Amino acid sequence: MENSTEKAWSGFQSGPWKDEVNVRDFIQRNYTPYAGDESFLEGPTKDTQDLWQDVLNLFEKERENGGVIDMDTSVVSTITSHGPGYIEKDKERVVGLQTDEPLKRALQPNGGIKMAVAACKTHGYEVDPEIVKIYTDLRKTHNAGVFDVYTPEMRACRHSHIITGLPDAYGRGRIIGDYRRLALYGLDYLIEDKMKQKDGTESTMNDLVIRHREELAEQIRALQELKKLGESYGFDLGRPAENFGEAVQWTYFGYLAAIKEQNGAAMSLGRTSTFLDIYAERDLAAGFITEKEAQEIIDHFIMKLRMVKFARTPEYNQLFSGDPQWVTESIAGMGVDGRSLVTKNSFRYLHTLENLGTSPEPNLTVLWSTQLPEGFKRYCAKISIATSSIQYENDDLMRIVHGDDYAIACCVSSMKVGKEMQFFGARANLAKCLLYALNGGVDEISGDQVGPKFRPVETEILDFEDVWSKFKDMMDWLAGVYVNTLNVIHYMHDKYCYERVQMAFHDEHVHRWFATGIAGLSVVADSLSAIKYAKVKAIKDERGIINNFEITGDFPTYGNDMDEVDDIAKEVIETFMHYVRGYTTYRKSVPTTSVLTITSNVVYGKNTGSTPDGRKAGEPFAPGANPMHGRDKKGAVASLASVSKLPFSEAQDGISNTFSIIPDALGKDDQVLFGDVAAGCAACEVDPAVGAEDAIDVLPV
Amino acid sequence: MENSTEKAWSGFQSGPWKDEVNVRDFIQRNYTPYAGDESFLEGPTKDTQDLWQDVLNLFEKERENGGVIDMDTSVVSTITSHGPGYIEKDKERVVGLQTDEPLKRALQPNGGIKMAVAACKTHGYEVDPEIVKIYTDLRKTHNAGVFDVYTPEMRACRHSHIITGLPDAYGRGRIIGDYRRLALYGLDYLIEDKMKQKDGTESTMNDLVIRHREELAEQIRALQELKKLGESYGFDLGRPAENFGEAVQWTYFGYLAAIKEQNGAAMSLGRTSTFLDIYAERDLAAGFITEKEAQEIIDHFIMKLRMVKFARTPEYNQLFSGDPQWVTESIAGMGVDGRSLVTKNSFRYLHTLENLGTSPEPNLTVLWSTQLPEGFKRYCAKISIATSSIQYENDDLMRIVHGDDYAIACCVSSMKVGKEMQFFGARANLAKCLLYALNGGVDEISGDQVGPKFRPVETEILDFEDVWSKFKDMMDWLAGVYVNTLNVIHYMHDKYCYERVQMAFHDEHVHRWFATGIAGLSVVADSLSAIKYAKVKAIKDERGIINNFEITGDFPTYGNDMDEVDDIAKEVIETFMHYVRGYTTYRKSVPTTSVLTITSNVVYGKNTGSTPDGRKAGEPFAPGANPMHGRDKKGAVASLASVSKLPFSEAQDGISNTFSIIPDALGKDDQVLFGDVAAGCAACEVDPAVGAEDAIDVLPV
Repeated sequence: MENSTEKAWSGFQSGPWKDEVNVRDFIQRNYTPYAGDESFLEGPTKDTQDLWQDVLNLFEKERENGGVIDMDTSVVSTITSHGPGYIEKDKERVVGLQTDEPLKRALQPNGGIKMAVAACKTHGYEVDPEIVKIYTDLRKTHNAGVFDVYTPEMRACRHSHIITGLPDAYGRGRIIGDYRRLALYGLDYLIEDKMKQKDGTESTMNDLVIRHREELAEQIRALQELKKLGESYGFDLGRPAENFGEAVQWTYFGYLAAIKEQNGAAMSLGRTSTFLDIYAERDLAAGFITEKEAQEIIDHFIMKLRMVKFARTPEYNQLFSGDPQWVTESIAGMGVDGRSLVTKNSFRYLHTLENLGTSPEPNLTVLWSTQLPEGFKRYCAKISIATSSIQYENDDLMRIVHGDDYAIACCVSSMKVGKEMQFFGARANLAKCLLYALNGGVDEISGDQVGPKFRPVETEILDFEDVWSKFKDMMDWLAGVYVNTLNVIHYMHDKYCYERVQMAFHDEHVHRWFATGIAGLSVVADSLSAIKYAKVKAIKDERGIINNFEITGDFPTYGNDMDEVDDIAKEVIETFMHYVRGYTTYRKSVPTTSVLTITSNVVYGKNTGSTPDGRKAGEPFAPGANPMHGRDKKGAVASLASVSKLPFSEAQDGISNTFSIIPDALGKDDQVLFGDVAAGCAACEVDPAVGAEDAIDVLPV
Repeated sequence: MENSTEKAWSGFQSGPWKDEVNVRDFIQRNYTPYAGDESFLEGPTKDTQDLWQDVLNLFEKERENGGVIDMDTSVVSTITSHGPGYIEKDKERVVGLQTDEPLKRALQPNGGIKMAVAACKTHGYEVDPEIVKIYTDLRKTHNAGVFDVYTPEMRACRHSHIITGLPDAYGRGRIIGDYRRLALYGLDYLIEDKMKQKDGTESTMNDLVIRHREELAEQIRALQELKKLGESYGFDLGRPAENFGEAVQWTYFGYLAAIKEQNGAAMSLGRTSTFLDIYAERDLAAGFITEKEAQEIIDHFIMKLRMVKFARTPEYNQLFSGDPQWVTESIAGMGVDGRSLVTKNSFRYLHTLENLGTSPEPNLTVLWSTQLPEGFKRYCAKISIATSSIQYENDDLMRIVHGDDYAIACCVSSMKVGKEMQFFGARANLAKCLLYALNGGVDEISGDQVGPKFRPVETEILDFEDVWSKFKDMMDWLAGVYVNTLNVIHYMHDKYCYERVQMAFHDEHVHRWFATGIAGLSVVADSLSAIKYAKVKAIKDERGIINNFEITGDFPTYGNDMDEVDDIAKEVIETFMHYVRGYTTYRKSVPTTSVLTITSNVVYGKNTGSTPDGRKAGEPFAPGANPMHGRDKKGAVASLASVSKLPFSEAQDGISNTFSIIPDALGKDDQVLFGDVAAGCAACEVDPAVGAEDAIDVLPV
C-alpha cells in the first residue's frame, strides 16, 4: 500500500474493504449512527450565501433567456472536452462544472444528433453544421442505430402509443456509478482493479467476451480521462481522498465525469451521505474542520448538483412533464444488522433545503423505515412540511431485496450501488391492449391494424371469459413486441452510447434488471370488473371498431379494498409479467416491471379510446397504480389496501400511488400517513398543506 | 416491371434471373462463347491514347513527388464525399475517380486513425488535427477496437512474429461485391430487394438478428448513396444499364463506391468480362457500337482500374512487398455445362495489356482449364510472354468447389461472387511453432515466454515421437490463439469498418470463409524429416534456449516426390487444420487455410531462429508450399509432385508454388508448364524468359 493510501485511510477500521473494492464493508465498519436531533446543524456561511445568490441570478437569467443561458454548439462533451469552470473560484469548496461556464449546456450527440439539434433549435441555437455532418456521415448514434433495426410493427406500436416513452430518442439513464469508490480508493487503484478484471476474462473470444473486454477497456480509458479532469482542477484523483472536503470533491468528480458524457433520463447520484459522514466524523474529531465548515462543504456539493442541466428537446420535456434530471440521492435507511444508517451527514443533506432553500433537485430521497431514529423522522417531517422537497421510499420492503447499500435511480428504481443496473424500458399501455383484444389488433383511434389479426370480440354484450382470453393473447403479443423493442434499444445504447464512466464504477459482473412498465392498470381492472360483474354492451363506430360502451348495473371498482376487482388487477400484473418473462432479454437481464406513471398517465389517456369501465376516449388514466379518480369511495385506508395487494415481487421496479391527505384523513390528529406507502418505491411529493408535525410512519403493508 | 427495365432487358433470354437477383443465370442464358482467335481485336483510339498519356504523365508525376500526387487530409472518404472527378471529361467513356482529382489519395480513417496519419506523414502530408481528434475522441476505429480487446498473449504472439501480418492495422479485404448486379438490375430494384430481405428477418431480437438488421439497413443506405454518386456524374443508376457502355459504367460505379469507402488489402473486382460481353454482343449485333468502340470502353474501364490507389503506410508496403491493390478480375474458365466462358470480351480485357501496355493492376487472372478454347490459350500465352502480366489459376480444381461463377479475391482466394466472402487471416509461423515446441514456449530470439509453459525437449538428440508430440500440443495452442485473435479482428472490423457497399452486392445470407494461413511448411517438413531420418543434436545457447542444431546423416527433403517427407508435410497441414477447426470461429464462418506466402516468406524467415533442417537463423523460408531452395534435386516434376500431394481440401484458400521454368524444363520444346500448378490457386507471375508460344497446359494434379 502506498503512503498516500495509508494516510488517507488512517484511523479507519480495517476490513475486507482494504483488499477489494467494497464500499459497503467500509461503511459498516466505520460509520457513526446518529440518533440525535437537528440542533447541531449550522446555517449557511457568507461564501455559501454569495455563491447561491450567484446561482440564483444565473437561474433567473436562464428564465429570462427562455430556458438556457448558453449552449455548446461545436464542442462535443467528453470528460476532458472543457477546461475548468467556476462560479466564484475562491469561494467554492467543491468545484467542477459540466462545461467551462456555469449552466452552459453541453453538446451530447451520441444518443442522437437530431435530438441534439432539436434541443439547440428550441432555444435558438444552431449546432455547428460540421458536427451534424460528423454525426450523420461518420459517427453513428444510438438513435440512428435503433431506427435502423426497428421493425414496421415496432414503429406502429410506437406510433399508436401502445408502447410509449421508449428510450430510443433519449438516454436510458438508471445507471448509478458508485462514485464513493473514487474517494475511498482513488483512481490508480480502481484502474488497476479494472485492468485485473480485464486480465481475468476467459480466453475464448466469442462475441460476449469480446464485448466484455472492450467495455472494460473503455472503462479504464474513462477513468484515465477522469484523472485528467481532476488535474485540470488541480487535484490528484489518482490517490484516495484524505479528508472530508476531498472525499466530497472526489465523489462529485466521479459523478461529474458521468454527466459530462451522458444525459440519461435519470442521472442519479447514489447513496453518499453516510459514506461521507465517516470522513466528516474523522475530521471533526481531529479538529480539522468545524461543523460550520462541514455543512458548507455539503451545501456547496448540493449546490453543484442543483446546477446539473442537460440540453433537451420539447418532446422530452413533454414526456417527463418538465426537465427533470433525477439527481437522486438516497438517504438514511436501516442496516441489515439493525443499526440505523442515519448519520449527521444525513441531516446535513436535508438541511441544504433550509440553507439554500427548497429545490426539486437533487432528488433527496429518504429510505424510510419504521425503525429510523425519532429525531431524524421528526426532522424529515419538518423539512417536508417546509419545503415539499423530500421523496420517501419504503426501505423496509426494498432492504429485503437489495440489502442495505442500494440506492434509487430516477424516482423509484432500486438497485445495489455499483452491483446492479437497469435497462430502462418505459411503459406498455395495457388499457389500449384491452381495446386491441376487443378489436382484433385494430387501433381504436387510427383504425390501423397494429396488433396481430386475432379474431375480434363477436358478441355485443361482452363476456368476461371471452374478453379475458383474448386480452391474455393480446398481452402476450404486446409483451413480445415490447421486450424485443427494448432489446434493440439496449443493444444500440451499449453500441453507440455506452455509459463507460458509470460502469467503471461498477463491479465487473453486474446484475442487470430489464425494466418494463405498465400503464392503465386501474382502467383495465375496472373494465374487466365491469364486464364480469355488470353488463357491458360494446358499440361499434362507423368503421366497425368497438369504440364505446354502455354499462348497465354496478360493479366493484379498484381502490375500495374489494377482492373481486383487486384480484383482477393483481392477475393482470402477474399475467403480463409471465408473458414478459417468456421472451429472451438482452444480456441475460432479469425482467421486472413497474406500475408507476406519475404524470404521463395524462398523455397515455389522451391516446387511448373509451374503455369498458366508463372512461371516455382521451380522458386521463389514473397515475401509477392509483384507483381511478373518484372511484375509491371507501376512504383512504381502503384505497391504499387495494394498492397494497399488488404483488411487489412481480413489479420490483416500483408501484406508485400518488396520494395527498389532510391531517385528519385517518381519524387521528397526530399521525400522518406518508404518500409512498403501497408497495414501497414510488415517488410522491407530500402536499405542504398537510401540515403534519407529529409522528410520521409508513403504514405496514 | 417498369419500362426502363423492359428496355434494358430487351432481347435477353428470360429465366429465373428476371424474378430474383441471379447474375449467373443471366450469364448462362445469354452469353456467347467465343472459340476464335484475337484477330477481331482493335487497337486503341486517339482518345484512349490521349487519356492514357495523361495517366502516364500523372504516374510520372507521382514518382517524381516520391509516391503521391496529392492526398486528402481533411475530407473523410465516403461514397458521396467528393464531387465528380475526371481526367479529360470529353474523352472518357467510363468516368469516376476515387476523389475529385486523378490519383489524389483519399482519407480513410475508419480502419485506424494512426495508420491514416502515418500514411500521410510518409508522403509529407499532415491529417487535419480536427479529423485526428474526431477519430480519437468521438469515432472509434477498427484498429482501436482490436487493441482494446487483445490479450497480452495475443500481443506477444504478434510481437514475436509467430502470428504475422494480421489485418488489425489495415483493411481485411477479400470481399468482392457482385457489381454486375448494378448493371443488370439497377439500384432501385436492388434497394427494394434488400428492403424485402430486411422485412423478412425473424422477429426475435437477439444480438444476431439485431446485427443482421442493422447491416441490411447500412447496405440499403450505401446503395442510396451510390445512387447519388451516379447522379453527381449525370447517370441514373436507379434503372438497369441499357447498353454496353452503361453496363461497364454501372459496374464500375459499384466498384468505385466500394473503394471510396474501403481500402482493404485486396479490393478485387470479380468476374465481369463475360457478363459484360452479353451487352457488347447485343449492341454490336444491333449496330449500336463498333468493335473499336467496344474496345475503347474496355480500355477506359481498365484504365480506371489501373488508377486505383490508396494511402498506405510503409509497414503495409513492407508486409506486402509493394503497394498492391489486388484489383483482381477473373477471366475465362469453363461452365459446369461444359461450355467455355471465354467471350470476345475476355480477349478485350487481355488486349488492354497491348493497347495500354503492361501493368500489374488490375490483376488480370485467367481461370485456366485444359478445356479452354485453343485460340484463347494461345492469346494468353502471347500476352503473357509479351507482358508478364497475367495470373493463372486452376479452374478445373476450383470449379468443383465453387461452380462456375466464382472469382479470385486478392491473389488466390476463391469465392462465389456475391454469395461467399472471406475473413482474411494472414499467417501462423509453423517453423517458429516447432522451435517453441522444443523450447517449452520460449521464443528462441527474444527469450520471452510467449507460448504456454509446456515441458521443453529434454534430450540432446531429438527424438521424432517426442518432438512430434510436443509440436502437436504447441500447434494446438497456436491454433487457439490464432483463431481467437482473428475473431477479435473480424468482430471489430464489422463493428467499426463494415464493408456495407460490398455486402450490399451480396445475397442476404452469405457463406463466410474463415481464412487462416501457414508459413514455413517446407522448413517444418524438412526439420521433422531430419529428426526422424538423420540424427539431430539440439544445441542450447547461453540462455539455455535450443537455438542451433548439428545434423548427422542424410534425410529426405520435401520437393523430391518422396513420401517419407511429403507425408510429413501433409500431416502437418492436416493436424494444424484439425486444431483450427476445434476453435469457435466468428459468425459461424468455415475455417480454411492457405500455404501461400509469396514474398513475406523472407520476413518470416528473418524473425525465426535456426531450424533442425539446417536452415540458419534469419534465412528466408521457401515461399508458400515451395520446397526449400536447392533441396528439390530430382527435377521439376518431382518437385511439383511433392507440392501436389498437399491436400487442397485442407487448404482451400490456396497452396502456392512459385516456379520459374525454361522451355525445355520438361524435355519438350512445345509444351510449357505454367507456374501455378500445385493445388490450383496460387499467384504466379510467369517469367518472360520462358518464351513459350505453343501449347499451354496445366499439369493435372
